[in-house]
Amino acid sequence: MNYTLYIGNKNYSTWSMRPWVVMKYFDINFDEKLIRFDSFANDSLFKQTILPINPYGTVPVLINDDTTITDSLAICEYLAENHQNLALWPKDPKQKAIARSIVAKMHNGYLHIRNHLPMNIEASLAQIGQIILRDHLDVKNEIKFFDEQISSILAKSNGKYLFGDFSIADAFYAPMCLRLKTYQIPTSNHLNRYIETIYQTKGISDWIAEALLEKDFIPMDEPYRFNR
Amino acid sequence: MNYTLYIGNKNYSTWSMRPWVVMKYFDINFDEKLIRFDSFANDSLFKQTILPINPYGTVPVLINDDTTITDSLAICEYLAENHQNLALWPKDPKQKAIARSIVAKMHNGYLHIRNHLPMNIEASLAQIGQIILRDHLDVKNEIKFFDEQISSILAKSNGKYLFGDFSIADAFYAPMCLRLKTYQIPTSNHLNRYIETIYQTKGISDWIAEALLEKDFIPMDEPYRFNR
Ligand SMILES: N[C@@H](CCC(=O)N[C@@H](CS)C(=O)NCC(=O)O)C(=O)O
Ligand SMILES: N[C@@H](CCC(=O)N[C@@H](CS)C(=O)NCC(=O)O)C(=O)O
Repeated sequence: MNYTLYIGNKNYSTWSMRPWVVMKYFDINFDEKLIRFDSFANDSLFKQTILPINPYGTVPVLINDDTTITDSLAICEYLAENHQNLALWPKDPKQKAIARSIVAKMHNGYLHIRNHLPMNIEASLAQIGQIILRDHLDVKNEIKFFDEQISSILAKSNGKYLFGDFSIADAFYAPMCLRLKTYQIPTSNHLNRYIETIYQTKGISDWIAEALLEKDFIPMDEPYRFNR
Repeated sequence: MNYTLYIGNKNYSTWSMRPWVVMKYFDINFDEKLIRFDSFANDSLFKQTILPINPYGTVPVLINDDTTITDSLAICEYLAENHQNLALWPKDPKQKAIARSIVAKMHNGYLHIRNHLPMNIEASLAQIGQIILRDHLDVKNEIKFFDEQISSILAKSNGKYLFGDFSIADAFYAPMCLRLKTYQIPTSNHLNRYIETIYQTKGISDWIAEALLEKDFIPMDEPYRFNR
């Protein structure tokens, strides 16, 4: 299989991270093309590079020979089908159905957290975290709900990941864990342990290491810092 | 297979419509449970009914024996796997990958249209449509983009649906077609023909007929009417 994955800045791009981590974890080889987030304006280098490949103008994009897939979830489904021996989704159909349900929730939900606590792997923003929790009840409630959901899934899991072994579901929830750490949000014991597991997971630790080497500063992704 | 599908009001609930239409089109039997949208407040009858089934508090929900699936897309993926003889997705892997990409775009995109032109099957809101197009450039641009995308997919299709025969992709795009009709938004010839096809499609025409029989009026879903 001949795969090329287009991604954005590793420090900021949550959607890029998900399929990248899945491919690394499962040893699926691919060429990586990183398109820097100079800006999302129509005349940006980012848009000029991505639009000819993907009319939606977003990353990630996976190209496999003459097939172009333009969404993180669609990419993961495609990979799961191409590599059925690898169990990218939980094998049990019922577990798989629950995994897809929570991945879909990540795909179009948790908007308060996504809006107010953008991923910024290299930053330490404990004080911002406290201010957000104090001033945004919607964020606070969503984090509480998120914690309860993850904890209840982990309580039923027969492994340290959401559905026993690592799956697409964990890749989808990994950026949330990185956010909770950056903003030092207090979480339950279950979720704390899961966050530690996530940080030590093959593919995820590689993404984080490469994010830390990036040393880039993209103002549009930095509501809470003026420089590095 | 023993399926129960929980849905909301047929006149308003786009997410409910999608899996319902797929099941009807492909003759997959199910019991339907409609939970009226009295309101989305925590003490509403709607929330009191749905929350014990689905912690996310949303419809649709599919229950199959002891498996509960809480998202429209996850439900469709589950059905596609359970009924592989029926080709719920296009059979060709490349077509399927593109179908999943555009379904994902529907699942978390087209937000301007979704916000400003809510589905309201029984209403005729041509004047509102004109006002929205005049005052909201973002809606206008998104409709133009949507039209171009659909037209270019239809131009390559070897049938009157997006990927030849009817598939999950058409079910995901059907509510957009119904919106364009309600608000009488001018569209290209390609898209006009597709909207007509959608209206005459088995499952979709049934949903519309039942929506018209509903004769309910839910204020939170009616930014543009005071009564029926
Ligand atoms: N539904 C897409 C969303 C991708 C997305 O929004 N990516 C961001 C970067 S993390 C992007 O490219 N944004 C460009 C823009 O919004 O103009 C997916 O899940 O892959
Ligand atoms: N991601 C879900 C979204 C479902 C959804 O938002 N459904 C609406 C009705 S169309 C709902 O139940 N809303 C309740 C609420 O927002 O509180 C899906 O695709 O099934």
